[in-house]
Amino acid sequence: MEGHVENECVLMSDDGRVWLESAKLLESEMEEGSVLLRTILAEVCGTDVHLLHGRLNTVPYPIIPGHVAVGQVHSIIGSVFDVEGVQIEVGDVVTYLDVIGTCNSCLTCLVDKQTTRCPCRRVMGITCSANAKSVRGLLGGWSSYIYLPPNTKIIKLPKGLSARTFMSGGCGLPTALHAIERASMRIMDRVVIQGSGPVGLLAALLAQASGALQVVVVGGPAHRLNVVMKFGIKATINIEEIRTAPERREMVKEIMGGRLADVVIEATGRPEAVAEGLELCRDGGTYVVVGQYTDNGSIDINPHFQINRKNITIKGSWGSDFSHFYRGVQFMAQMSHLPWDLVVSRVYALKDAKDALASVEKLEVFKALLDPRIA
Amino acid sequence: MEGHVENECVLMSDDGRVWLESAKLLESEMEEGSVLLRTILAEVCGTDVHLLHGRLNTVPYPIIPGHVAVGQVHSIIGSVFDVEGVQIEVGDVVTYLDVIGTCNSCLTCLVDKQTTRCPCRRVMGITCSANAKSVRGLLGGWSSYIYLPPNTKIIKLPKGLSARTFMSGGCGLPTALHAIERASMRIMDRVVIQGSGPVGLLAALLAQASGALQVVVVGGPAHRLNVVMKFGIKATINIEEIRTAPERREMVKEIMGGRLADVVIEATGRPEAVAEGLELCRDGGTYVVVGQYTDNGSIDINPHFQINRKNITIKGSWGSDFSHFYRGVQFMAQMSHLPWDLVVSRVYALKDAKDALASVEKLEVFKALLDPRIA
Amino acid sequence: MEGHVENECVLMSDDGRVWLESAKLLESEMEEGSVLLRTILAEVCGTDVHLLHGRLNTVPYPIIPGHVAVGQVHSIIGSVFDVEGVQIEVGDVVTYLDVIGTCNSCLTCLVDKQTTRCPCRRVMGITCSANAKSVRGLLGGWSSYIYLPPNTKIIKLPKGLSARTFMSGGCGLPTALHAIERASMRIMDRVVIQGSGPVGLLAALLAQASGALQVVVVGGPAHRLNVVMKFGIKATINIEEIRTAPERREMVKEIMGGRLADVVIEATGRPEAVAEGLELCRDGGTYVVVGQYTDNGSIDINPHFQINRKNITIKGSWGSDFSHFYRGVQFMAQMSHLPWDLVVSRVYALKDAKDALASVEKLEVFKALLDPRIA
Amino acid sequence: MEGHVENECVLMSDDGRVWLESAKLLESEMEEGSVLLRTILAEVCGTDVHLLHGRLNTVPYPIIPGHVAVGQVHSIIGSVFDVEGVQIEVGDVVTYLDVIGTCNSCLTCLVDKQTTRCPCRRVMGITCSANAKSVRGLLGGWSSYIYLPPNTKIIKLPKGLSARTFMSGGCGLPTALHAIERASMRIMDRVVIQGSGPVGLLAALLAQASGALQVVVVGGPAHRLNVVMKFGIKATINIEEIRTAPERREMVKEIMGGRLADVVIEATGRPEAVAEGLELCRDGGTYVVVGQYTDNGSIDINPHFQINRKNITIKGSWGSDFSHFYRGVQFMAQMSHLPWDLVVSRVYALKDAKDALASVEKLEVFKALLDPRIA
Repeated sequence: MEGHVENECVLMSDDGRVWLESAKLLESEMEEGSVLLRTILAEVCGTDVHLLHGRLNTVPYPIIPGHVAVGQVHSIIGSVFDVEGVQIEVGDVVTYLDVIGTCNSCLTCLVDKQTTRCPCRRVMGITCSANAKSVRGLLGGWSSYIYLPPNTKIIKLPKGLSARTFMSGGCGLPTALHAIERASMRIMDRVVIQGSGPVGLLAALLAQASGALQVVVVGGPAHRLNVVMKFGIKATINIEEIRTAPERREMVKEIMGGRLADVVIEATGRPEAVAEGLELCRDGGTYVVVGQYTDNGSIDINPHFQINRKNITIKGSWGSDFSHFYRGVQFMAQMSHLPWDLVVSRVYALKDAKDALASVEKLEVFKALLDPRIA
Repeated sequence: MEGHVENECVLMSDDGRVWLESAKLLESEMEEGSVLLRTILAEVCGTDVHLLHGRLNTVPYPIIPGHVAVGQVHSIIGSVFDVEGVQIEVGDVVTYLDVIGTCNSCLTCLVDKQTTRCPCRRVMGITCSANAKSVRGLLGGWSSYIYLPPNTKIIKLPKGLSARTFMSGGCGLPTALHAIERASMRIMDRVVIQGSGPVGLLAALLAQASGALQVVVVGGPAHRLNVVMKFGIKATINIEEIRTAPERREMVKEIMGGRLADVVIEATGRPEAVAEGLELCRDGGTYVVVGQYTDNGSIDINPHFQINRKNITIKGSWGSDFSHFYRGVQFMAQMSHLPWDLVVSRVYALKDAKDALASVEKLEVFKALLDPRIA
Repeated sequence: MEGHVENECVLMSDDGRVWLESAKLLESEMEEGSVLLRTILAEVCGTDVHLLHGRLNTVPYPIIPGHVAVGQVHSIIGSVFDVEGVQIEVGDVVTYLDVIGTCNSCLTCLVDKQTTRCPCRRVMGITCSANAKSVRGLLGGWSSYIYLPPNTKIIKLPKGLSARTFMSGGCGLPTALHAIERASMRIMDRVVIQGSGPVGLLAALLAQASGALQVVVVGGPAHRLNVVMKFGIKATINIEEIRTAPERREMVKEIMGGRLADVVIEATGRPEAVAEGLELCRDGGTYVVVGQYTDNGSIDINPHFQINRKNITIKGSWGSDFSHFYRGVQFMAQMSHLPWDLVVSRVYALKDAKDALASVEKLEVFKALLDPRIA
Repeated sequence: MEGHVENECVLMSDDGRVWLESAKLLESEMEEGSVLLRTILAEVCGTDVHLLHGRLNTVPYPIIPGHVAVGQVHSIIGSVFDVEGVQIEVGDVVTYLDVIGTCNSCLTCLVDKQTTRCPCRRVMGITCSANAKSVRGLLGGWSSYIYLPPNTKIIKLPKGLSARTFMSGGCGLPTALHAIERASMRIMDRVVIQGSGPVGLLAALLAQASGALQVVVVGGPAHRLNVVMKFGIKATINIEEIRTAPERREMVKEIMGGRLADVVIEATGRPEAVAEGLELCRDGGTYVVVGQYTDNGSIDINPHFQINRKNITIKGSWGSDFSHFYRGVQFMAQMSHLPWDLVVSRVYALKDAKDALASVEKLEVFKALLDPRIA
């Protein structure tokens, strides 16, 4: 367990700087119950673009970005077990819930049972301050090594699920699973997904896998919708072509045989999508808002027509808990035959993190991956 | 069963006229399975004020207003049974669900199970066109006689529940019961009710009866809040005194030991209350919108802060079904010891219907009643 | 609309006699709002075997068996609409909910909202007395013509869904859909289905279509499990081979990676399966009992180990309502690529109804069909 | 924080011996984050009688019994906070969740969300081995001092709630709250409670406080039912007088106007009560089994009549979590006006623990309390 590691990582500051740092770090600084991973793949997603532009509150810059990742266990202090009680061993290929610190001791956790709103909750790669000079500061995926503090929830990748396939789902998958859970879908429900980014695509796949009669994805641009269709989603509406909300509503009704959706899931990030989405949902249906991850302003809502008279249920869906992550891993293992390569543009070296970010920001790709082992 | 009745009723037109009409009507026009009531008490509520000002869509004026009423059975064609299977007899003192026509044959009724949104649904006293020249046109409570078409859901007033006490709950009670059902309250929940009109008062009483730890009513004016307190609600916030939403939020938190509400029920009719109410609800709490009965315009909502990040559940609550009405009758029977006289200002004759309306419009009273037997 | 039809039908008496009757029937006896179907296919299912042996209470023999059927509209009195509001026309190929008479007026329907327990509910082909001498008495599917009384819920078969494919689902489908709804499945749940008859097979398919991580069917004999596997269910346990409940439990755990099922659905008809099924369900899981359609006696349950300490939820699932039937039609339309021919042994003429019954009773086949057009 | 305490405690062995031990114990053995209480009152309940007779599995005797208690903080190592974030201070009068060790790391906790079935869960006073020679071994209430290990969930008694009143609810309260939560009661539900011990009484009070239309307690002996009635429960049925289940069922129906209960909660400990309780529940109702805490054998259940055809929901309710405990404290604070003295027979000294046990076993009293400060 002795020794040190040569680490290279990407740091990001609050003024949008992104730079590489290298250091030789002592493993003796690891805590009892902690695990050090050699990173295999880490994600570059829309959240990282938000982080670059300082759009999230209370981020303790500098950080090492990269909240979801896969790595190989390099060292372990003491005995560490996965959630099924299996001991973690050096050499295992694992992923982990990026959420740490949920206290399980406050009213939010224990009485309200809203663990994704626990004030102690931190997210690796987002709200964990980095320290490139200590293994204990390697709290993000854009790094040769990742430090998993004691009690990090670790899952071994199931046989037959490659790191790359798993990372195609990545951070969007537990988010989408939480949204699907909030939707309380019934088999043969008609579903609209607003948004064709990673969360939108995954929500569409989850809706289909949950027995939807129909899934309509409203999004764009065209190349994204093409990918959505290659995943087996039969109906899409391109917002760049069908440019007004009323026209899109008519199109949804036409696709759905004159009816509106039983369930609508918003995964766009654009506030105005919420007003539109309410109109796509039938009376008494369920509308889940999962894409409003950052503050992009307000919208006009008519509480008579859009809430009260519709007898509608609207649910915010914030973050995800371990159950979503666990089921997400199972889902990817079951769905590994899908064309996941279409969502990962390219695997970059750490030194090319800025290029990866730029590519994600321009929506050229669904997501990019970093492989710190690439020189 | 032969014979005729001398009827007097109040009619309302789409230009806001309100007038009396008398006629001698043939009972032979009654349909098989119908019931004719001699009205004991009918309600004058906020909806009637909306009707006077033409604020509801698709009202087939002229109408006889008065959607909830109590009457004594005057005649019956054939055998008619209440919902418990007991035969209705001449002389029984009964009330009835004002909603008729729900088809139980459409997708909304049978698949979506949203019977309060059935397109065939009509409400006596609101969306039933009147005809003062036929017993079959007496489809509202402001009339000496009320015609209950076949399949109207009738309930005998339980022993010990007077017509007047029952009417103190009136139309607001099933509405409030639906809202409480939508709230999915748990015992020892902290509850805020926005609004201190009839629905607000009743929602507060229902929340208390459902085991709320605390119930805070945010409303006004002072004389209404005084009544609320006389019904045993310990905490009220007067919006005429505490004039800004942030101040009221602080006050709610102070009352609730630093916490926000688990459940908030909006019963105000003012759109801006919805934006305020979302801020009174804790993360992961439930917000029920029941007071937006008519279109009073839109409001600004921030979907990031007020929906998504809060992981909140927002529920519209439209109308009510028979289950709410039935439980409402039981509730009034159980709660007959409360000071219901405080909510009924005065009982008017039919000819004074305009005065009754004016009194309700000025919020001088919670509600007024009409007794057609008064000369 | 004038005229008469030459009808042939199968009658069944309380002493187990089954015979053919022919008659020339007047269409003028049809009621306003009724529909007369020329039968295309009717079902012979396990219920009919129970009926033959008098195992159901309160069956008003003689009856024309056959509760689920498909027919072509022969005549209509007045205007009749399907549940989507589309007018039914002569020549349409339709099916219909076999449940009629649900009153929508009693406490069970309106307050308890348990419409499948409404005391007025009757099922065509089961609890409707037959009269082969009148079109109005043709209340079962084993007949050249079927009389659909006013308010029967009718569905046109969707394009692309053949009568034969639809009938492969038949009566088991709404039953299985109700059971799946009661199960409140979540995506990636582990599911055990007890029973490999029609309801068991369909419940397994519905569980899979609802996103189950794993579906294990425990049943037999081998030829039935082979069919189950040909429908894409990967794991089966043959009760004729693995003969004790503890062994089967170990096998389920082995298949499920050491865990028990999140959801178990009983569809066997054997009481002892209930005791076994509780042991296949994890703590806090859901156990649905749908197969105990007739009284086959009692079993031993230990309330400490099998209910209380397990923190389990057990749900009876009785009958089905229109929502299950409607979603069932959609499901069959979506799943028409499955090898449905494997579940229908053979199509019989009416005169061979006894042979069809014998074949079903011996479990040689999942179900048989009758085509009254076969000479 | 230095020093020692003179402790006296009651020990119980697996052969049913109960004896006193005294020792001078070093506070320096306390762990970081732990709290030492000076016991004010500890409970003697039915579970302790089970423990005496060795009826619970896997109890690591010897133990110090007493799972729910109130004490005054004697010493604290480090900073300890209650669940609302308020710092615990020496001198505070507190209670604590007797459940410790729930891991929040296993599938049962994190994915199944069945924390009361976590395999790591231990209950102070029941499944915690005692060591009277160390403060760290004082893991039960029948002791002058109680050791609360790090992460024990502590609640300060609210102002106005005395230790004695709180202890009148005691361990039965979170148990009953869990049961009420499982019951998913709606306002104006008809409720039957089987059992008139502490859990039965509390479940009846909680049902009433949740807005039950009627609460009927079926239990005995008469002196217990008298107490139940003094708490405001209007209807009771004495099983010693009305001796057969069918007679009791008729009586329930008579009380409930011909109907059966919407919700039945079993709190008896007698297996045969489960078969009876299913018959007291209406079709589609909810039956909660909370009283089968130990194995008292099996019963006959007819799955056709009692589960499937009833379309019933049966729920086991095992243990309780912090949310139930927290809401229980609030409930007692709100209900402190009730005649709680009627449920506490007498307060005993530690040396009289055997007498207290005997009194509870003979059902002479609802519960007894121990005050270790009594000489």
